[in-house]
Amino acid sequence: MSETWVNLAERIGADLHLDLTGPGGRRAALTRALRAAVRSGRLAPGTRLPPYRSLAADLGLARNTVADAYAELVAEGWLTARQGSGTRVAPRAEPSAPGRASAPGRAGASPPARGADRPVHDLRQGQPDPSSFPRSAWLASARRAVTAAPNDAFGPGDPRGRPELRHALAEYLARTRGVRADPEAIVVCSGFAHALRLLFGGGVLRGPLAVEGYGLPFHRELLAQAGVRTRPLGVDADGARIGELSARERAALLTPAHQFPTGGPLSAQRRTAAAGWACSADRIVIEDDYDGEFRYDRRPIGALQGLAPDRVVYAGSVSKSLSPAVRLGWMVLPGHLVDAVLAAKGEREAWAGVLDQLTLADFLRCGSYDRHVRRMRQRYRARRDRFVTALAEHAPHVHATGIAAGLHAVLRLPPGTEPAALDAAARAGIALDGLSAFRHPEAPFPPEDGLVVGYATPPDHAFGAALDAVLRVLPR
Amino acid sequence: MSETWVNLAERIGADLHLDLTGPGGRRAALTRALRAAVRSGRLAPGTRLPPYRSLAADLGLARNTVADAYAELVAEGWLTARQGSGTRVAPRAEPSAPGRASAPGRAGASPPARGADRPVHDLRQGQPDPSSFPRSAWLASARRAVTAAPNDAFGPGDPRGRPELRHALAEYLARTRGVRADPEAIVVCSGFAHALRLLFGGGVLRGPLAVEGYGLPFHRELLAQAGVRTRPLGVDADGARIGELSARERAALLTPAHQFPTGGPLSAQRRTAAAGWACSADRIVIEDDYDGEFRYDRRPIGALQGLAPDRVVYAGSVSKSLSPAVRLGWMVLPGHLVDAVLAAKGEREAWAGVLDQLTLADFLRCGSYDRHVRRMRQRYRARRDRFVTALAEHAPHVHATGIAAGLHAVLRLPPGTEPAALDAAARAGIALDGLSAFRHPEAPFPPEDGLVVGYATPPDHAFGAALDAVLRVLPR
Repeated sequence: MSETWVNLAERIGADLHLDLTGPGGRRAALTRALRAAVRSGRLAPGTRLPPYRSLAADLGLARNTVADAYAELVAEGWLTARQGSGTRVAPRAEPSAPGRASAPGRAGASPPARGADRPVHDLRQGQPDPSSFPRSAWLASARRAVTAAPNDAFGPGDPRGRPELRHALAEYLARTRGVRADPEAIVVCSGFAHALRLLFGGGVLRGPLAVEGYGLPFHRELLAQAGVRTRPLGVDADGARIGELSARERAALLTPAHQFPTGGPLSAQRRTAAAGWACSADRIVIEDDYDGEFRYDRRPIGALQGLAPDRVVYAGSVSKSLSPAVRLGWMVLPGHLVDAVLAAKGEREAWAGVLDQLTLADFLRCGSYDRHVRRMRQRYRARRDRFVTALAEHAPHVHATGIAAGLHAVLRLPPGTEPAALDAAARAGIALDGLSAFRHPEAPFPPEDGLVVGYATPPDHAFGAALDAVLRVLPR
Repeated sequence: MSETWVNLAERIGADLHLDLTGPGGRRAALTRALRAAVRSGRLAPGTRLPPYRSLAADLGLARNTVADAYAELVAEGWLTARQGSGTRVAPRAEPSAPGRASAPGRAGASPPARGADRPVHDLRQGQPDPSSFPRSAWLASARRAVTAAPNDAFGPGDPRGRPELRHALAEYLARTRGVRADPEAIVVCSGFAHALRLLFGGGVLRGPLAVEGYGLPFHRELLAQAGVRTRPLGVDADGARIGELSARERAALLTPAHQFPTGGPLSAQRRTAAAGWACSADRIVIEDDYDGEFRYDRRPIGALQGLAPDRVVYAGSVSKSLSPAVRLGWMVLPGHLVDAVLAAKGEREAWAGVLDQLTLADFLRCGSYDRHVRRMRQRYRARRDRFVTALAEHAPHVHATGIAAGLHAVLRLPPGTEPAALDAAARAGIALDGLSAFRHPEAPFPPEDGLVVGYATPPDHAFGAALDAVLRVLPR
């Protein structure tokens, strides 16, 4: 970056120039310049730095570049990042020893802590509380699994996944979700998106594909990239309107346990209808059981797959139950699709880490997975209850749906108020999505206003503040 | 499977019928039938079972079905599988407690050991010795890394990869391979094939692509699927014939450290020429540094990337150095390609397991990776020496190339003798490939006869027997 001087006066209320010249990339230059400014005292202790997004826009840099510069300086002790108070110059402007990052004997640069990369309140749907990852139990399983693994586990991997994991999953899914699962019909993958890629990108299934009128935009994009035409179904309190399925579609992607994101489970009548539709011809239902473990007010409803194992692809992952950092998912396939999926996957396992597979197998077998799900269910239920109570007290005019299960709620807003609520949320540092973001552009119903609030992500100590912040941005 | 009786008389020299009826899938039925036959004594202790491929063909079952039935019975203790003696009925026909697999308190089926799935001698190229995986050191790194990780490590992953790993890789690659690596320009992926998919399937680079006239068929297939036209270069003792590169190609895929699979490093003159070709226009060289760590008779040659970091994509993985079971690789990218690769990868990490990333970062930082590579280099060099000595003694007419480095050698055979040698190897239970399998169909040189012998895979105690077996199949 050549000869660039940046004036931070407007941003931090102080006249400050940063010299972004010198060797190395842009991140290195910015890091060096900010460090120099802190060291020299030009940036005083306690000064609040501009949000990295703003500074990135000012400097014409990528957001990540600025976020990383901040994070590196946090790791080095020049800056502090705390939820709720932004990134500030550290009280004592001396590089402290930030633990792990610069422990003696570790060569190389300090890994950025990336603390500055977070919104104040992260209420995006679909993310479990990262602070609740069961580190000790996972490490205990890793130790047992890696120690006991046969040598061939360290050779090229079977694209079906490790047999230990497929057997453990078959037992678990049969017991907890009513899935009729033969380990031979299970194929491990790196998450639900990978499953969709294998099914459609790999030529196993073809469109037209019926989808729910509300769903994850990321899945729609992925399907569009694979050239799959999607036709959206209506969605109501009983889930997707299965009666709208026609003979034109060859497959349907459904979330029977908990319509995503609006709420309820698919009604019994519609479950039967969906199975019947698939069985009446050569059709497939893909059952996205994304949060089937988290039921609060009623008994869990078994997987649709149990009704028609020959016509349903049951797909799940650990992304909601454990962590999206463990890149593991699975498909329980109708027998006649197994070879095609394996052909799409390739001769060897190219994706799912085998050591994580072995560890998850042990984690399931020894009961740690059950214990973790039970603990998280209690925690999320308590949060849900607190959310509902606060809502009834402070915003009784706002109706919440989808709250009997899962990690998020949909707050229904008066028509036309969603954009203003989203703006207010952004200003308050709350990351969340509007309901409109999940609507299929061709959905057979008008757009509805709402906020999709994930209540799982904040750590326990920060949940109250996040809740208050959401209540404040709701329309009066 | 309905009413099927199978006569194994021809296969095992005994009149035996297996009842493959009953509940469950085909594997379950076969497992049950074989178990019953062993238990009843109809299959006597020591009886050698037919190879699973033969039995699968006889029964009209998938090979994996039979392999898994065998493996399950091995795990349960009814059968034994040893390299060199096939699968036999266990001496005492009682179910032993095969450790982990059926330890008390573990519900569900026993994980098959898959011991029956292996050739007698596995000499396929490109596979490190799976018995040498550094389990203890890896687990120690996992413990440190997972314990010390910040909470956000368990949230959605950064598609660039964890900063801890990118920083550790930058330091390691600069130190050992002369790569000019800014952590910001590193993108983690799940292996070299994933890197190719991101570059070409993701629209980052386009063909026509120059490739070496010898290369991995899997890469050619992958590129063809992505619609990339490839033009093969000649290959000689100095590596790829860089002089054949033209202005028509927009990119070139090279193995400068060790032409794959034929042998030598790219000569200094050609390295300069390749860098010049890329720099003279908007062209990119992809440097596949697949086994850059394993040099035996000479100093390692630094990466080509060091000559032209703005025009070279340097790609590596742990698949050869550590294990293909750890699905981790990396690209060091020219700065102007980083955003495009990240766009191809998606907003969140969908592939590379974050816990493995953290573990590998610690493994690199604490010196375990260096120690492991050093140990393996010594071990592979000793094997290479033993191989060369045996060859000189027993088959002096066979010339070996590519033996100064890597995990394999190419044995040059007299014209027309490759097919017979491959047949003989298959009959002897040796898994290896002929040189012709690696030749690009349009390579500008005639087919040559040879065997590509990977000498890294067999465990130490089996290496001598594997070597003898190879010598026996060479043409006289």
